[in-house]
Amino acid sequence: MLQDQQYLRIPGPTPIPPSVQRAMAQPMIGHRGNETSELLRSIKPRLNKVFGTDQDVLIVTGSGTSGLEAAVVNAVKPLDEVLVIVTGAFGARFVAICEAYGIRVHKYEVEWGKAFDTHEIKEHLRNLPNVTAVFATYCETSTGVLNPIHELAAAVKEVSDALVIVDGVSCVGGVETRMDEWGIDILVTGSQKAFMLPAGLMFIAVSERAWDVIRSNPNRGFYLDLVKYRDDLAKDTTPFTPALSILFGLDQALDLMEKEGFENVYARHTLMKKMTRGAFEALEVPLLTNEEDASDTVTAVKPDDFDAEEFRKVIKKEFGLSVAGGQEHLKGKIFRIGHMGYCSPADVLQTLGMMEMGLIKTGKNIELGKGVAAAQRIYLEWGE
Amino acid sequence: MLQDQQYLRIPGPTPIPPSVQRAMAQPMIGHRGNETSELLRSIKPRLNKVFGTDQDVLIVTGSGTSGLEAAVVNAVKPLDEVLVIVTGAFGARFVAICEAYGIRVHKYEVEWGKAFDTHEIKEHLRNLPNVTAVFATYCETSTGVLNPIHELAAAVKEVSDALVIVDGVSCVGGVETRMDEWGIDILVTGSQKAFMLPAGLMFIAVSERAWDVIRSNPNRGFYLDLVKYRDDLAKDTTPFTPALSILFGLDQALDLMEKEGFENVYARHTLMKKMTRGAFEALEVPLLTNEEDASDTVTAVKPDDFDAEEFRKVIKKEFGLSVAGGQEHLKGKIFRIGHMGYCSPADVLQTLGMMEMGLIKTGKNIELGKGVAAAQRIYLEWGE
Repeated sequence: MLQDQQYLRIPGPTPIPPSVQRAMAQPMIGHRGNETSELLRSIKPRLNKVFGTDQDVLIVTGSGTSGLEAAVVNAVKPLDEVLVIVTGAFGARFVAICEAYGIRVHKYEVEWGKAFDTHEIKEHLRNLPNVTAVFATYCETSTGVLNPIHELAAAVKEVSDALVIVDGVSCVGGVETRMDEWGIDILVTGSQKAFMLPAGLMFIAVSERAWDVIRSNPNRGFYLDLVKYRDDLAKDTTPFTPALSILFGLDQALDLMEKEGFENVYARHTLMKKMTRGAFEALEVPLLTNEEDASDTVTAVKPDDFDAEEFRKVIKKEFGLSVAGGQEHLKGKIFRIGHMGYCSPADVLQTLGMMEMGLIKTGKNIELGKGVAAAQRIYLEWGE
Repeated sequence: MLQDQQYLRIPGPTPIPPSVQRAMAQPMIGHRGNETSELLRSIKPRLNKVFGTDQDVLIVTGSGTSGLEAAVVNAVKPLDEVLVIVTGAFGARFVAICEAYGIRVHKYEVEWGKAFDTHEIKEHLRNLPNVTAVFATYCETSTGVLNPIHELAAAVKEVSDALVIVDGVSCVGGVETRMDEWGIDILVTGSQKAFMLPAGLMFIAVSERAWDVIRSNPNRGFYLDLVKYRDDLAKDTTPFTPALSILFGLDQALDLMEKEGFENVYARHTLMKKMTRGAFEALEVPLLTNEEDASDTVTAVKPDDFDAEEFRKVIKKEFGLSVAGGQEHLKGKIFRIGHMGYCSPADVLQTLGMMEMGLIKTGKNIELGKGVAAAQRIYLEWGE
């Protein structure tokens, strides 16, 4: 097999554009100097656009999970009651973090592969008057579901004063997000998904209402204390040494997104979802989620007549193509294709072309080219 | 369109593997130090394998054309008579170089798109007793023809003592080459094709018989005087400062080829040719060359009911996909797809997928996915 070639189509980490790689290879700078301040000044307004907020988007060196923990330790106090909407493995992670801090958790579980129903959440919350925060996942990476975050906060506010805290890790930057307009109180994402960067940075923004809660919380930990990050970012600096190479890369990645146009970035992700789903529908291989609940950034496929793990092994060995498997009780039952960040419709076609051959090699009887052709048709109709 | 993404499928320069890019970014070294000697020692035996020769393969900083000129100025004297087999634009270049040096050229012209017939060359040469060198092109890049170089020298030797000088620029490294076994006297290639490197280095090897001729030539120029390169390479050095970054890259590119296995590299190129040709046959878009004459590294397509240039514009604008146009009298009439070097069967599928959509956008009525499916079938049968 051709060496030094891998196709990374898991739902993050995602491939890095060459110009971002080059930007990250810049000579190191001092984290307390003017160059770092200039870098942060260049980054800030673009992060505002991606989040859809006028609040400063804080930049923390850590993984996405550090962002979920930051939301919990800053906005919730031990013994507080919270509602966590669990639509998959990442909803469950919010539960685990809250429990680690002695927070009283009400779980609202949704069948994996389905989005939550906002009306049902509202009715459920009506009976939980002491809940101070509602945790939700925007894109549930483990199932490829995009939850209706845009309507959640308005519904919550009808029945509760609880803060609305959202994990946007595997979609923000790839799907339109209007934090302020939608009334989200805390929004978290990571660098290694739609931002086309390595893992290592976490971005988090906080509403005025949530800052009031955070300021009144006497125990916010130390490294993840968001007040420190907010006060320092206002002066174009950070409380602790940031992952400067990834900041160089972030500046360039935002340049690329701006050059493409944020609206076009989001439209491209929607198109890639439609192409991927259309191909598997044409091949009559079942999808885990229905059209309405499906994420623009990751598609979960649930085969009913071949082995998902065997298929993943075949395409990895034969083509160097990596897609993700299932998690928890979906382990072995699904595979998940990432189509986000540095990924084009032409890359989707290529992934589909390889997967069709992988299906044949796995023993599944399909008509070669049929999925690719369905995706091509969707592309051509989209352009019209 | 997704920024910072281009698909370079011209017949060279070709894409550079990431590990080769990284190798080329190594800190600069002195060209007279031990590090350079070690680098040359590491490179030499692998170049021998690629060329199929026990002679040292000389490394000259220059383009492929500098290699053609080096062959001429070293092995031919002004007023000598030579035979140049012209199967396309690069055969014609040998003519131009010879004429620039006052060499008397007999041209043997073959219809563009066809390979030469060795028997006919032999019969032609029978009537040219004073010819001291026969020039031929291995892969004629301008038409996608792979000439039967493997049988040329044996045929020439039957009727003449002329040296056999071969331009192997757009195929050596991608197709099997046995310089010694086939009796080639001088073989030239460049770095920017099957070697997966930027342009800037030229490789040239010379038979014992040709060295005798070269030594007796009193005017070999200066920079391209191959005796200088030979004497210096025997001491693991070069007469003039070499393009060291590309040497770093060459060392890594040869590592990649060795890791894949040279036989596998050549088989991959044959497969990619078959996939590309099979796709256009399925789509009923005519090819310029017949199966027997077709190169493993580049395929020329000659549409009969759509505009090749319009098609090239569409796929460049829509997908960032570059393929080459025609040269000289084939300008506007063909397009040429490179499938060599850092290019995999999966990349060929992707190129075909994009081109099918480009055909529709150009107004050509094709069945989407049909060419891709034909290529997939060829891939799957190949593996069996």
